[in-house]
Amino acid sequence: MKFNCSKTDLNINLSRVSRVVPSRPTHPVLGNVLLVADAEKGRVSLTAFDLSLGIRTSFHASVIEGGMITLPAKLLGDIVSRLPEGEITIAYEDNSGEDNALTTLTSASGRFQIRAMSAEEFPPLPVVENGSLVMLPKSALTEGLRGAAFAASTDETKQVLTGVHLICSHYSLEFAATDGHRLAMVETALDEDSVTSSELEDFEVTIPARALRELEKMLSMAQDTELVGLNFDEGQMVFELGDQILTCRKLEGVYPDYRKLIPTEFTRTATLERKRLLSGLELVAVLADQKNNLVKFTINGEESEVSLSVEAADVGSAKESLPGQITGLDLEIGFNVKYFMEGLKTISAAEIKMHLNECNQPVILTPMSGVKVTYLLMPVQLRN
Amino acid sequence: MKFNCSKTDLNINLSRVSRVVPSRPTHPVLGNVLLVADAEKGRVSLTAFDLSLGIRTSFHASVIEGGMITLPAKLLGDIVSRLPEGEITIAYEDNSGEDNALTTLTSASGRFQIRAMSAEEFPPLPVVENGSLVMLPKSALTEGLRGAAFAASTDETKQVLTGVHLICSHYSLEFAATDGHRLAMVETALDEDSVTSSELEDFEVTIPARALRELEKMLSMAQDTELVGLNFDEGQMVFELGDQILTCRKLEGVYPDYRKLIPTEFTRTATLERKRLLSGLELVAVLADQKNNLVKFTINGEESEVSLSVEAADVGSAKESLPGQITGLDLEIGFNVKYFMEGLKTISAAEIKMHLNECNQPVILTPMSGVKVTYLLMPVQLRN
Repeated sequence: MKFNCSKTDLNINLSRVSRVVPSRPTHPVLGNVLLVADAEKGRVSLTAFDLSLGIRTSFHASVIEGGMITLPAKLLGDIVSRLPEGEITIAYEDNSGEDNALTTLTSASGRFQIRAMSAEEFPPLPVVENGSLVMLPKSALTEGLRGAAFAASTDETKQVLTGVHLICSHYSLEFAATDGHRLAMVETALDEDSVTSSELEDFEVTIPARALRELEKMLSMAQDTELVGLNFDEGQMVFELGDQILTCRKLEGVYPDYRKLIPTEFTRTATLERKRLLSGLELVAVLADQKNNLVKFTINGEESEVSLSVEAADVGSAKESLPGQITGLDLEIGFNVKYFMEGLKTISAAEIKMHLNECNQPVILTPMSGVKVTYLLMPVQLRN
Repeated sequence: MKFNCSKTDLNINLSRVSRVVPSRPTHPVLGNVLLVADAEKGRVSLTAFDLSLGIRTSFHASVIEGGMITLPAKLLGDIVSRLPEGEITIAYEDNSGEDNALTTLTSASGRFQIRAMSAEEFPPLPVVENGSLVMLPKSALTEGLRGAAFAASTDETKQVLTGVHLICSHYSLEFAATDGHRLAMVETALDEDSVTSSELEDFEVTIPARALRELEKMLSMAQDTELVGLNFDEGQMVFELGDQILTCRKLEGVYPDYRKLIPTEFTRTATLERKRLLSGLELVAVLADQKNNLVKFTINGEESEVSLSVEAADVGSAKESLPGQITGLDLEIGFNVKYFMEGLKTISAAEIKMHLNECNQPVILTPMSGVKVTYLLMPVQLRN
């Protein structure tokens, strides 16, 4: 194997795939990146795979001799990122027969020799054969992930709740995630023209939030008009974006019927300036108890005011007030201040509306403009 | 005690003093900052002190009632930094007689109550009485600290080597620091007019590097033309800059006679582009052994080239070459790559000159322009 490429191309593509390389690989080869040079296509592909999540990218290169090899991802990335701009050559002589042979990287002023591992040891990236392929606009995916993925559980034992549930039905996409304490749901309509030329079939799938965080990073580098291919079968899910693919296992199990958790009628509402509410919560959160993170909302219709207060037994207390448009009777209700802030941060609208019933019933937040987001929060009991 | 001040003033001054507040104080009051409101002067002073290093600053405030109290530094800083711009009021009623009474902080939209501790529990900041006072230009101190302080030992058992040695003699200032493996020395000449109106007396003092790192931060915010007051007696050292003072204990013990370590004659020199040498070292350092950090310099006069090479048994090898002006015979010599890079980073000149004898004798680096810096490095034995 031997190819010349630009430092910049190799560096960008290495940083794309290296994100999924585990820092403590269970097997040495999983700490490596697979390089495949294709002389016919004049391209080099890079693959990283931790046995559940995989990324492959490819870029143009002048391939003198095709071949494949794996190299330590961190070491290679550390070297390439520090190289000056310019052309570099990577060469590996496959005639030795010995394992751990040296791969040579040559730049204008230097020469590096790195111990390689055979490409045969690298686990194959799962492929989807005869699966469903749908093309979705980048913008719909970006909005959905931004508004929902943060609410997924980070507790690996919670299985299906560590994922984002995606429902495609009648040219609308719905994203939902919940960890049992809160639920975030985003609904986006798909423009028929923007989706695909053939008819879009309905589907429903739960995707690990970790894979979607990687997808978000991929999407953040792409043009707004680009389409993302979703290719999936019973067990596997593959996202395709330009020269990059991301592959992961679908989460198995029945996703909870979250729609029935969302109340449809409310006796109270409060419309508030989002940034002001967020700043107020950030302030009182300084004193919130590290354990229960409790903040008390006091909703006062006569004063058209919502006050946020926190009591920390050994430290002190905090209270912030902000104006709001209020309907319904006054109410005192408690929330986990971190959960409340996380929801507000993913919304971009200038105003949000709280929809409430009693102090022990779920509350929903909705933005007053823009993407259709529903954020449901379970209240926390106030201490008396 | 009661005063009004601007959020910005309080925030800036809190962040200045909070740097010396220990994150795990040995006594609760050392986690606090002392606030003293002086009604006559219309000023509030803030003090933090960890029993070895102390900072005091003061700022204008509208003092309604003078007094003093201590408040948890981190909590107060977290609140004040998140407050919107505007006026805030801090009030503490001293009539309770009870300890841990509440101090109230009021802003336009909120009210915080914070448990306070009595000012009487706060240890007094050491003062220097009848000491020597000299005024030095900020620029000389900045250059000296930048060029020398990094070479001080971080090993607390090394006593006097954890400090920077400062010699003032005949209107020149010399800064030196060494950890036994390398030595950094900076010489700056003082303009007689810029120093002080009275005659500058010669002095010699060793100051903890930790205190000087804080002084560097203080200096970085100051005007270039400002003067810094050094006030010291047998045991204590006080730096004064505008409204801020920094106090620390002098390091006791005889500082080594480092001048005699610096060779005065050399058989070889190599003049190199500083940035290129630094980039080359950063590249090969990726493969340098974590334990000995060994890099080999091969100085080749015929080729007018210096090459940097590293061997890492299980990983691979790296070699970078760069052009240089060379005098004397060829040489192979080993260095600790981290020590070499640290020295190069504090120099700002475009070119540096290495002065060498044999591969087991100390080497010095000097910049080809600007501040007079001498960086001495002990070579490391090469493995054969």
